[in-house]
Amino acid sequence: MAKISALSGFPEWLPAERLVEQHVIDVFREVAELHGFSGIETRAVEPLEQLLRKGEIDKEVYVLRRLHAEEDGRAPGDDSGADPSRTLGLHFDLTVPLARYVLEHQNDLSFPLRRYQVQKVWRGERPQDGRFREFYQADLDVIGQDTLPGHIEAEVAVVMAEILRRLPLPAVTIHANTRKLSEGFFRSLGLEDRTAVLRALDKLPKIGEAAVRALLVEDAGASPEQADACLAFASIRTRDGSFADRVRELGGTGEMVEEGIAELTAVVERVEAAVPGVILADLSIARGLDYYTGTVFESFVEGHEGLGSICSGGRYDSLATDNRHTYPGVGLSIGLSRLVARMLSAQMARPSRPVPTCVLVSVADEESRAQSDAVARALRSRGIPCEVAPTAAKLGKQIRYADRRGIPYVWFPAADGSDEVKDIRSGEQQAVDPGTWEPPAADRTVQILAGDVTE
Amino acid sequence: MAKISALSGFPEWLPAERLVEQHVIDVFREVAELHGFSGIETRAVEPLEQLLRKGEIDKEVYVLRRLHAEEDGRAPGDDSGADPSRTLGLHFDLTVPLARYVLEHQNDLSFPLRRYQVQKVWRGERPQDGRFREFYQADLDVIGQDTLPGHIEAEVAVVMAEILRRLPLPAVTIHANTRKLSEGFFRSLGLEDRTAVLRALDKLPKIGEAAVRALLVEDAGASPEQADACLAFASIRTRDGSFADRVRELGGTGEMVEEGIAELTAVVERVEAAVPGVILADLSIARGLDYYTGTVFESFVEGHEGLGSICSGGRYDSLATDNRHTYPGVGLSIGLSRLVARMLSAQMARPSRPVPTCVLVSVADEESRAQSDAVARALRSRGIPCEVAPTAAKLGKQIRYADRRGIPYVWFPAADGSDEVKDIRSGEQQAVDPGTWEPPAADRTVQILAGDVTE
Repeated sequence: MAKISALSGFPEWLPAERLVEQHVIDVFREVAELHGFSGIETRAVEPLEQLLRKGEIDKEVYVLRRLHAEEDGRAPGDDSGADPSRTLGLHFDLTVPLARYVLEHQNDLSFPLRRYQVQKVWRGERPQDGRFREFYQADLDVIGQDTLPGHIEAEVAVVMAEILRRLPLPAVTIHANTRKLSEGFFRSLGLEDRTAVLRALDKLPKIGEAAVRALLVEDAGASPEQADACLAFASIRTRDGSFADRVRELGGTGEMVEEGIAELTAVVERVEAAVPGVILADLSIARGLDYYTGTVFESFVEGHEGLGSICSGGRYDSLATDNRHTYPGVGLSIGLSRLVARMLSAQMARPSRPVPTCVLVSVADEESRAQSDAVARALRSRGIPCEVAPTAAKLGKQIRYADRRGIPYVWFPAADGSDEVKDIRSGEQQAVDPGTWEPPAADRTVQILAGDVTE
Repeated sequence: MAKISALSGFPEWLPAERLVEQHVIDVFREVAELHGFSGIETRAVEPLEQLLRKGEIDKEVYVLRRLHAEEDGRAPGDDSGADPSRTLGLHFDLTVPLARYVLEHQNDLSFPLRRYQVQKVWRGERPQDGRFREFYQADLDVIGQDTLPGHIEAEVAVVMAEILRRLPLPAVTIHANTRKLSEGFFRSLGLEDRTAVLRALDKLPKIGEAAVRALLVEDAGASPEQADACLAFASIRTRDGSFADRVRELGGTGEMVEEGIAELTAVVERVEAAVPGVILADLSIARGLDYYTGTVFESFVEGHEGLGSICSGGRYDSLATDNRHTYPGVGLSIGLSRLVARMLSAQMARPSRPVPTCVLVSVADEESRAQSDAVARALRSRGIPCEVAPTAAKLGKQIRYADRRGIPYVWFPAADGSDEVKDIRSGEQQAVDPGTWEPPAADRTVQILAGDVTE
């Protein structure tokens, strides 16, 4: 037997940990469906040429090869790796596959398409800095055909805010900015190289104000006064529409600035109305503004800001396009595995018990196993998860077995119907009927508890 | 934009079809957890040397390579493909990963481990005969440490029977046989090459009795009388323990035959008690008997026998082993994607509507969108999935939008609180309150209906 060792970058959870991950996925799905989003899954592979269209991260793609193709000396053709249109790679996000799915199935979809998607993606990065090579992404997008109303930007943020609020996390804040506001402001200051300005501001959390000011002057061609105005702009964070006046006070003016103000105010107000306290206008948000074309979002967990944004996205004017149609979209994506890894390591969440089982039905002797099976059947018919003891060991041993697995109740069937059930945490034991006994609601199925909950 | 075309062997569902697949996965999970099975997921990749240990299907493995490794001219080392202990391949089933998971995490698991696992697997086969290259498997296993009681064989079959019974399928029958019975019977006939006998009998459905008789005589060294006895044995199918007498009448005798009879009888009786009518003792089941060490199962859908077994498995004495422990197991596995593909193509199941949305809240004009949002929030707070109309188009157009998406209800908010809701299937419209209105239970969330249900 070969030595077994963990693979760096490929996280794997124990059963109790998986309950937390499953809960996060369940909440995501439940809230998305409450808002009328359809779940889809796309195949794990895409032609390499599709994956490389995004350009920047081509080094990270895992390319697939059938083992026999390799033995064949990599002859040209299917799976050979020689032809990028026929070579397959594992998807590294869920956006490239969505674009392909929308084009491939456009005649069978109705638009705006409201879709959520929770799947694993793969990136061949060096597994450092808490980066995984295999991880779940959870995406939420609304895709229009040719047009997509602006208010969808707020709507997608609302759905994501409801998801994040329902998870056992410290307070999460969704930071929003819009491209028009930043670009209009830099333009009204007279700055030409707005990409350089964005790039400099994006470094604020890492290198600090002084270094960013230097970058703005040296790389972005700003005067010291312009640099100060940019830094003052980037320091604006408000829970409501009051950011607008501060932008104007700093000299922000013109049509683009006012459009940006109107857009961001609408997003902030609509999200605040739906999920009070979650949204923050944050004009320092720069990352993605060169890619997204409208509102852009990043989200941070209180006390875990070092984790970076756990949920990002925004509006893009063209997810996909063909000869007939352009597909604009608004999307937000949670880096789910990274979030779950932190939830587990920081003990933000834990399952109320490590297994689904609520009741262990004991077995007095192998001859009466059928009777224990019947009790278990009666409990399950009412939705109470249970298992029957694997062996007819001494009852003390069966109780220890339940204890070791974290099963809260042990049932003792009796031939004369005088069954009893024991709560092995309290030791309390009572006479019960398998047709009517109910565990407390908190014990029925596994609950995911916030880490700071004391029982 | 590159031409988009479907990839053969990589199935992908439309949103309405995905609802059926999701339902199958949900039922699997719900029943498994009711029986105290823990859900786990393993990483999609395993070291190639682990994947090749099974031997036979090495040609089917997809090997991974990071794109940059390829550009580097496949230098030795990580991901290079040169070293099978460091080369990674996509898993082709969930059993090899389970074996590795059990060994890797044995100190953190409690045994018997009851685990279910629903994940995609990949096989680089030619996508013919309805075979997929990427597909879901849904596995259920109980793994013991060093020992595992025999009654677990029936138990796993019961859980799977409950899953299959809850799916919108025609009647499914689980066919069971045990190795001891077949082997003991062939031995008591005096046949030496029992593998050859099994191999011949395995071909019965394909080539028929006469051809199998010839094979038994020519390849397995049977006399014509022995061949007839084998064929008579393989024709035994009973719903209860009555197969035993027929085996004895055919000359089955000895300790091994009697042990096999006791084992199979116990399985049949226990499964019949839990899920009446699902189990069949079928002594023709030969496939897998050379791999499994106890009971073996195959399952067939009435009217779709040509699909082959949709759920197979059995007992194996060693899933994994290291210096300290051996891990015996009992497992059953559903080829979920193939089953769902047939459910869809044969219209065995369909969603009650194609989207999760129960109610479209209309928007009279953009100024009153906040009011429509508030109605939607009130409905969602009571678990009613809804969406707000994307544009304030004419109401007729909003109704047609709902109709096209398959949303059953359209809500008309009114500033004075005189809201109305219309069932667009019947045209019926009534005055309602968003705080109290309830759709009929069948409309609340998507139901998966059997294909033959008429509404």
